[in-house]
This record gives sequence, C-alpha cells and structure tokens, in this order.
Amino acid sequence: MRGPAAIGAEVRRVVGPAFTLRFIPAREDLATTSAWSLPRSTRAAIEEMPEGCVVIASTPDVAEAGIFGDILCARMVRRGVRGLITDGVLRDAAGVRGTGLPVWSRGFAAPPSVSGLIFEGWQEPIGCGGVAVYPGDLIVADADGAVVVPPSMVEFVATAGPEQERLEEWILGEVANGAALPGLYPPNSEARARYEAAKGRGAGK
Amino acid sequence: MRGPAAIGAEVRRVVGPAFTLRFIPAREDLATTSAWSLPRSTRAAIEEMPEGCVVIASTPDVAEAGIFGDILCARMVRRGVRGLITDGVLRDAAGVRGTGLPVWSRGFAAPPSVSGLIFEGWQEPIGCGGVAVYPGDLIVADADGAVVVPPSMVEFVATAGPEQERLEEWILGEVANGAALPGLYPPNSEARARYEAAKGRGAGK
Amino acid sequence: MRGPAAIGAEVRRVVGPAFTLRFIPAREDLATTSAWSLPRSTRAAIEEMPEGCVVIASTPDVAEAGIFGDILCARMVRRGVRGLITDGVLRDAAGVRGTGLPVWSRGFAAPPSVSGLIFEGWQEPIGCGGVAVYPGDLIVADADGAVVVPPSMVEFVATAGPEQERLEEWILGEVANGAALPGLYPPNSEARARYEAAKGRGAGK
Amino acid sequence: MRGPAAIGAEVRRVVGPAFTLRFIPAREDLATTSAWSLPRSTRAAIEEMPEGCVVIASTPDVAEAGIFGDILCARMVRRGVRGLITDGVLRDAAGVRGTGLPVWSRGFAAPPSVSGLIFEGWQEPIGCGGVAVYPGDLIVADADGAVVVPPSMVEFVATAGPEQERLEEWILGEVANGAALPGLYPPNSEARARYEAAKGRGAGK
Amino acid sequence: MRGPAAIGAEVRRVVGPAFTLRFIPAREDLATTSAWSLPRSTRAAIEEMPEGCVVIASTPDVAEAGIFGDILCARMVRRGVRGLITDGVLRDAAGVRGTGLPVWSRGFAAPPSVSGLIFEGWQEPIGCGGVAVYPGDLIVADADGAVVVPPSMVEFVATAGPEQERLEEWILGEVANGAALPGLYPPNSEARARYEAAKGRGAGK
Amino acid sequence: MRGPAAIGAEVRRVVGPAFTLRFIPAREDLATTSAWSLPRSTRAAIEEMPEGCVVIASTPDVAEAGIFGDILCARMVRRGVRGLITDGVLRDAAGVRGTGLPVWSRGFAAPPSVSGLIFEGWQEPIGCGGVAVYPGDLIVADADGAVVVPPSMVEFVATAGPEQERLEEWILGEVANGAALPGLYPPNSEARARYEAAKGRGAGK
Repeated sequence: MRGPAAIGAEVRRVVGPAFTLRFIPAREDLATTSAWSLPRSTRAAIEEMPEGCVVIASTPDVAEAGIFGDILCARMVRRGVRGLITDGVLRDAAGVRGTGLPVWSRGFAAPPSVSGLIFEGWQEPIGCGGVAVYPGDLIVADADGAVVVPPSMVEFVATAGPEQERLEEWILGEVANGAALPGLYPPNSEARARYEAAKGRGAGK
Repeated sequence: MRGPAAIGAEVRRVVGPAFTLRFIPAREDLATTSAWSLPRSTRAAIEEMPEGCVVIASTPDVAEAGIFGDILCARMVRRGVRGLITDGVLRDAAGVRGTGLPVWSRGFAAPPSVSGLIFEGWQEPIGCGGVAVYPGDLIVADADGAVVVPPSMVEFVATAGPEQERLEEWILGEVANGAALPGLYPPNSEARARYEAAKGRGAGK
Repeated sequence: MRGPAAIGAEVRRVVGPAFTLRFIPAREDLATTSAWSLPRSTRAAIEEMPEGCVVIASTPDVAEAGIFGDILCARMVRRGVRGLITDGVLRDAAGVRGTGLPVWSRGFAAPPSVSGLIFEGWQEPIGCGGVAVYPGDLIVADADGAVVVPPSMVEFVATAGPEQERLEEWILGEVANGAALPGLYPPNSEARARYEAAKGRGAGK
Repeated sequence: MRGPAAIGAEVRRVVGPAFTLRFIPAREDLATTSAWSLPRSTRAAIEEMPEGCVVIASTPDVAEAGIFGDILCARMVRRGVRGLITDGVLRDAAGVRGTGLPVWSRGFAAPPSVSGLIFEGWQEPIGCGGVAVYPGDLIVADADGAVVVPPSMVEFVATAGPEQERLEEWILGEVANGAALPGLYPPNSEARARYEAAKGRGAGK
Repeated sequence: MRGPAAIGAEVRRVVGPAFTLRFIPAREDLATTSAWSLPRSTRAAIEEMPEGCVVIASTPDVAEAGIFGDILCARMVRRGVRGLITDGVLRDAAGVRGTGLPVWSRGFAAPPSVSGLIFEGWQEPIGCGGVAVYPGDLIVADADGAVVVPPSMVEFVATAGPEQERLEEWILGEVANGAALPGLYPPNSEARARYEAAKGRGAGK
Repeated sequence: MRGPAAIGAEVRRVVGPAFTLRFIPAREDLATTSAWSLPRSTRAAIEEMPEGCVVIASTPDVAEAGIFGDILCARMVRRGVRGLITDGVLRDAAGVRGTGLPVWSRGFAAPPSVSGLIFEGWQEPIGCGGVAVYPGDLIVADADGAVVVPPSMVEFVATAGPEQERLEEWILGEVANGAALPGLYPPNSEARARYEAAKGRGAGK
C-alpha cells in the first residue's frame, strides 16, 4: 500500500487478517457529533473486531481529519487488535502512542474525524493506499509499510519465507566477511552448495 | 467535487438524482475479464439505472484505467441516463463522444477498467472528488464542474435560483451600459429598487 | 508561472503592466457575503484598474472556489483590462467566455470565491504560480501560458524580440524547403549570412 | 503512460517504432545556449530519426521548460516523424500546431528547454510517464493517450485487434437497437453466434 | 493547517498569539543577499516580535529553500518566541534543534531562503497551510500539528477544554478497565452520572 | 535535490564524489528476477564503486519499490561507500539501518526493486530530485538533505566554508549574549571588526 507509513521509531512486525473500515468524505449538511451513537458508528465496529485482527481504514482524499485518538485506540488494544493501518491520518499523537497500538498512517492532524469524514461501514471490500483489501485478507506490516498477501500466496509466504530469511542471513554473513555479490546474491549453484553445507553444520542461523 | 471536469467544448447543464457506482483499486490476483459477467458487474448496474439519473462513479487513487468506453456509454444513453461523472478517467474518447453522453472526468486513458479497478457495487454512499454522495442526492453539473445539492437546499435552489439569475442578468446589462460595481453587485437598496422597477416593466428578461 | 493555462481554443497574445490581487484561504468564522461591500472588496479593486493592465490574482492552495464570474469579468472588460491571470480557478465558464476577457487559470469550479477565499488587498507584491509579481511588472501571456518580464529585460525583449522572430521565420522557411537543422538553428555564420542577404532582398517576412 | 495527453481537438491515431530522447534537469552552472551546437544536441538527434518513427522524450520532474517549438517540430515532420510524445511540456503552442505534427504532452510552457533541461542522448532505454520505453518498441497513441505494445503482443494486437473492433461495432449496433448488455458484452455463446451469422451476411461493418 | 508537521521526537504544546511573516517566491533578477540588511528584512521583523508570540510564516509554493537557520532561531528564542510554524521548510536541522525553538514545518532543505524566497512583510493577514491567519489569532500547536482558534471560540476552548480533557481521562480509565465504547464515548446519561460521581470523589484526575 | 531526506535521528555529514545509478520504471513483460545476474546488474555496479564515493540513484516516478535492502547496503559499506542517496525509496528499513550506511531517500517500501524498476546502467549523467548529477560531481549530504556542489564552486566551498562557519559561530555566541540581529547578521563593518578582533584573540571557535 502506498501512503501508510510506520509511526514511531521502534516498529515491530504485525501480521493478521484484515478487518476493514470504510470512511467517505464529510459534507457540511451531514456530519454531526450526534452520528457517534448511531448503530453504524466506529464504536459499534470496534466491538465487532475479533482478537488478532489488523484494522485497515480507507479514507479517500481526506488527510485533514484524524480518524481515531487515544480512547478508540485504547479500546482496540483491549480487544486484541494487532495494528491499525490507514491511508489517512490519526489525531492525538501522544495519546495514541501511549496506548501501545502499532499504527501505520500518513501522519497526524488535530481535527477529529467528524470534521472531515463520515463512517460508512465495516467489513466491506475497500481500497487502501491504491490496493484492494477484502475482509480476512492477510496483512503484513513492518517498518517498510504494509502489504496485502494474496490468499494464493499465503502458504508460499509461510513456508518459503523462513528459508529465504535463513539464506539471506547466511549471505549477509558472507558479505560481512568480504565476499562480493556476483554469484552470491542471488546465489549460483556453487554458492548454494556452500550454503547447504553451512546449513548442514547448523550454521546459517 | 474536485477532479471531475467537463469534457468537450459544448457542455450543457445536467440535473438529476445520483446513481452511485463504487470501484476499488485492482489487485493482480483478483482482476480478470471473467468478472465482467458476474451479477455484481457494471453491466448489471447499468440495467438498474432509472431514466433521468446522473451516474457518479468513485475510483479512489486510480487514474490509469478508463472506467467505461463507447458500448457502456451508449447503453446508458439508451436507458435515459443524463450524465456520467467520475473522479477517475474514461477510455475511448472518440467513441464516448460519439454516444452523446455528457461526461465529467479527469480525462481519458487507454487501458480498460479491468486493468486497474474492481467494481464493488452500486447505490451505496460513496466519496467522489472529496465530497460524500448518497444515492438520490441531487446533482448539478455544467461547464464549471459538478456539485451535490444537499437535500435541505433543493427547494431554495429551485425557487431562489431563477430569481437570482434574473437579477444577475439585469446587473450584467447595467455593466454592459458602463455601470460600476460598488452598490450594484451586490445591489444596494437603490439598485434593487431600479431592478424591481425594470422587472415591473418586463425588462431584466 | 506554473499553473495558469490559457482557457479557450483561440488565444491571442496579451501584454501589459501587472495589476495584482491578493487572496488568502477562507476560514469558516470569517467569510461572509456581507464582505462583498466592504471598502477592501474585489469590486473596489476593479474600479482602480487602469486601462491596459493585466490582472494577476494570487490564490494560495485554493482550487475549489472560482474567484470571478461573468459580472466582474464584464466590468473588467469595460475598464479596459487586457487579461486576467490566476493560479486559482474561475467560475461560470460560459458567462466568462461570453465577456470576451482573455483568461489564464487552472480551470473552473462552481463555488464562488466567498466559499473558499478572502480578498486581502490589491497592488501588493504577490506570488503567482511560483514566481514573484510586483505591481507594474510587464506581463506577457499567450497560448503557452504567462511570464513576467523582469524590468531589466523589457528593452531587450522589445527590440531583440521582433528581429529574433524574423530570423526564426526565415529558418522555418528553410526547414520547409528541406534544410537540416545543424548549422541552421542556431545559425552558424554561413546561415546567418544567407539570412542577412534574404533580409536585404526584403524576404524573411 | 501517465502524463502525455493528446493536444488538440482532432487527434488521429499514430503507430510506429519508438525513437527515444533522454533529458535530465538543468543546473545553473551547466545549461547554456552554446550547448545547442554540440554533437550531442537535439538537432543532431533529429537528423538520426528514421521515417515513420514515433519520438518519445523523457523529461523527469521538469514541467517548466518546453522541450521543442515550431522549428524542431517542422524538421521532424519533414523527416517523416509520425508523432511526438513527452511526459514534459512543449513550447510555442500555436507554432507547433502549425507544423501539423501530432503531439502528446502535459501541455505547454513558454521557457525554452535550455532553461530547465539538458539533453543527454538518444536511443537509450528511458522511462516515460511511469513505463519503460526501449528504442524500437511499438507505440500506439490516440485521443486516449499513448501506450507501449510489448514485443510479445505485437502480433496479437495486429491480428486480434481488427476482429475485436468488428465485434465491438456489431455490439454497438445492437445497443443502438435497444439491446441490454448482460449476455451481449462480453458476448455469451448465443450472442456470439448471432454475431458470426451477421458477419457471414457481410454485416458487422 | 495542512503541511506544518512537528519536528523532533519530543514535542511540547505551544500556545500564543500569531505573529505573521509573508514570503513570496524569488525571481532571479530580484533576490540578492544585499536584501538582508533592508528595513523590510526578516531581521527587522524578528526585533518586532513580542514575548510569547507564535511565529507563522507563509511561503507559497516553495519547499526548496529553508526560511531560517540556527542564528535567526536563536534570536527568536532570546526574544521569547514560543514556536515557529511554516508551510515551507527550514534549513540547518542540527543547528535549529540546538536552539531549542519548537518548530513545525514540511521539513528541511539546505539552500537558504534568499535562493527561493523574498521576504515581503510582517503582521499582515496570510494564508498558511490552507487557512487564513490574522496577526493576533490564537495558535495552538502540538504533536498533531497546528490549528488557528477562531476568536469566537477562544473562551470556549479555555473553559470547556479542561473539563473535556478531564472527562476523556476518566473514559480512558474506564476503557483500561475493560469497558466497551457504546454508551461510554460519547457518554450517555448513565455514564455521565458515573463520571460526575467519580469527579465528586476527586477521581478523574 | 528535492525528495531525498535523511533517514534516522543521528545523521552525520557525508561528502564525496558521485557514483550514479540509473533505474527506469519496470514493465510487466520485462522485469524478472533472472535479470539479477546479468552483466548490467546492480551487483556488478556495486563492484565498480570506488572507496569514498557517494552513490546517487535515479528512480523516475517510482516510489512503490525499494531499490536496495540490507545485503546490497552491507556490500556497499564493505567497499567504502560513504552514503546512498535516492529520489526513490529503499526496502528493509531495519536491515539497512543495521548496516550503518547513511541513507537519504523518500522513505521505505516493502516490494523489491524488481517489482517496479529496471536497472539501466551506472556512471551516466542522471537527474535526481530535480537536479542534474554527473559522475564525479561533489555531493554533500546532511540532516538538511543533499546538494550537488558545482565543480566551479568546489574550491570556494572548501576554503570559504570553514571561515563562514567560524563567523556564524561567533554570531551565534553574540546572539546567545542577547545581541539583536540588524547589523550583526549579516555583519556590518563594526560587527566584522569586532569579529576579527575576537578571532585575533583566539576566540570565535
């Protein structure tokens, strides 16, 4: 996804199924604080979030209203939400940081969501940062940003990923020892044989 | 709405209730041409469009795929659609012009919608060009772009609008005769009295 | 200047001293239609515009409110204004076209200036489209856009310009006759001699 | 390609192999008009352009300097160049239009290329409007913009294209007669049979 | 205001009346370092800044020249300026940090203001980050960015603000104890009664 | 250069001759991981980098693919590269930080370069962040961003720079002691005399 960037210096990797929220831009005759207690409110959506999910909020064209502050983020933490990702912005930077919820956004803005956004619903397919996100899609977010893992690639990522990381760690060790990259990364057959031998000796980790 | 601009040199004013379409960005593992014949297709949506509506299509973050070409626009014309407005782009500029459908967009792009967009549904609330649009909202579009008339202002627009246009035409006549603006536009009581007198004489249109 | 683009198909060149207008973004608690009749109003500024000037309007960060419509443009035409240039947008495209005033802008938007802009004053130094404009600066605008001619270059432009145009017309003729560009454009001494000879024969026009 | 848009009201389709030009942004200590007569000049590049090519010029991040004006465009026309496409801008709108060269650009700007760009070379791989273009790639440009046809698809486009256009024309005729889209576009087997029958009768054109 | 973002990890809240600075884009024939000692210089403006003010600098369209470095920021600190906010950029990141002046900007750039900006005056109404700022407007800036408090809302903010913060702290405590949001935030009458009772007991801070 | 911003809180100044890399946008039919072992690969380029150089990578229009991760950065560190500057993004934020290579970029993105970029060559003139960079140009990068020092100014920067820094440090001391800026910065003859006297006394450092 383009746009959502990791907030904060210490970012840990977050993985989980997507729980989607859909906002649309506000209109002067529509947005009122009384909307907060309607059935179709962000509060009601938060109470539906399952433990372990990653929340993805779509806020097309609106970067002047922060979608959530400390209170809603604190409740998400209590419900076991693993992270919050938005192509918009949050508000109350200090308070949100205080809740410990890992967040990815375009930054922060002081005005509350009601001044720029209307909450339309949850668990619908949405666009976020230029890609489609469906409820339940696997989301991986870390210091590099957030990505959707297509269902057809989930197994590949789960199995081939750790082996690829092991290989890259071994290559990094070779580089630290002064090896040049051609033939090593990506590894040719000779390099791969050396890696397999090292792995056999319990190294490469 | 920001973004949708009138296409073509001769633009006539279009007024009607909104019929909304919602697209989300495509994802390589999801978009296929076979999606065209699904129940939730743009073809099915077009068959639901009532005569006299104005179609508003939301295409967040995607300006590289044209949502409709000549065939779909021709069918909309047959169904009595009054205009098509999108914050994205169309394709097949010559063909669309040939159908006579008034269109407002950010321009044209050659690739078809399937290469950049997924159609998610119709008659949902959407954001388009930075404002909320609900199914049935009154839309007015002309050479200046497109606006949503909030329901609470529809009657005011319908009754006060023609009188305001009559007044502005009279002012324009005064300016053509060399009158200066202060006191005339907006009119002070003296100018307004002259306008009312002119109106009484059947002038001012 | 970046931003202001010629509006309309037939654009004639406009030259004249700058008359500057400065807008700032509106704020909900400040912009009211009653501001229209204040001494510091666009109406009052228009009455100060001298015949032959080119109006340059600065509208930082605001492209959602059209600064002028047909009535104000009509009055400018009556006062002998040669053109209107803005890094923002106009409203009432059809009406403005009807006044015959040459305009350069980022386009058109339906909402009036009062909904997005406050008029702050006139004949102040302003920024427009990324360059400084001082009252009285010579402005040249044509189908390519608008430029400020620095005072130190006005004489050069006035004298060297026509000769350069004559030379380029002669070169264009040579190209039409099949001449290659190297040595011709820019002209080497041989090409320049041929040009001078042609000019002597009364050609080159 | 994003960015290059057709200039002018009457745009005819242009097809041909790419001839690439690479510009980089200027730097005050480097750009001088004396550079115009160097071997590595745009003039020299133009003399290398083969008849029938489509010129693609890359101008990263620079929209304030027009790469070519009437003289260079006139010479390209003489050499049989079919079209000029750039992700930057041109200058001398009226003059360029006068040469009859079909152009696709982001618009026009008055300053010449020397004030914002340095010409680096020709027939190198370049990026233009977000896609790679290699010398000789097949380019197709029309009112919708410009696209690169990958070599592996050239034959498909050449053979399947006309048949697809014939089919779409038949569908458009059906729509004009009041047919609904589901089952017709894309055609199901029944519709396709009717199309084949019509084609057999010499219709579909 | 859009654009100005808090710089630095530890951001304290800054409140005070606005002292405005107005820059316009530079032009090659105008900007010179000799301008630094003119009466209308940033140096002279700084000597006019009253203790406790918040400086707001407008720099339309220019993000390539840093308006101030360490020396000017150090002098502002000496004069009791509480913060510096700009929709442009600063220069000399390390030096500015060293002065301890809280700053909000779009970032940093190495070139000095003279290379991209002309200082036009101070204590004029300006636009900054898309909103109007008048001299003396109350400014509040923290980790979320900067906002202008309209005069009509100053008293409300001063009195209702602390009570609202107290209420939100109590709600945050309830959330920490596992309470769900519906009925609590915003509080219904039952929740508000519990809050009032807690406040009576000296809790809620 | 616009775009490349210092990554990380502790940024030290980096100086050295430019080693340029040129990427172009990817195209679906061209980018493959097999390209990694071609002679014209980033791996081969890295083996050409001389000790002490500063790498400048041009990635026009592409911010969705990270050009390098930890392995390539680690190899650059081994080869004595002083810094890496790009107008695009990197990937593997944590890993890159771990190599200790000073980097300036627009941020990070998870997808690898192969998904969005093609490597075209090295030590060619490139554009980066809106300015021309030639192989061997002197680059200076610090917390304010990166600049190219034109060859004609290298000696001036080398000799006048330290004296200017000494002067500014003296001025900063004066400001700390409460001195006002007019007459001091820039220094008039009286201030300059005091500075020279202080320098004579061994102060000013």
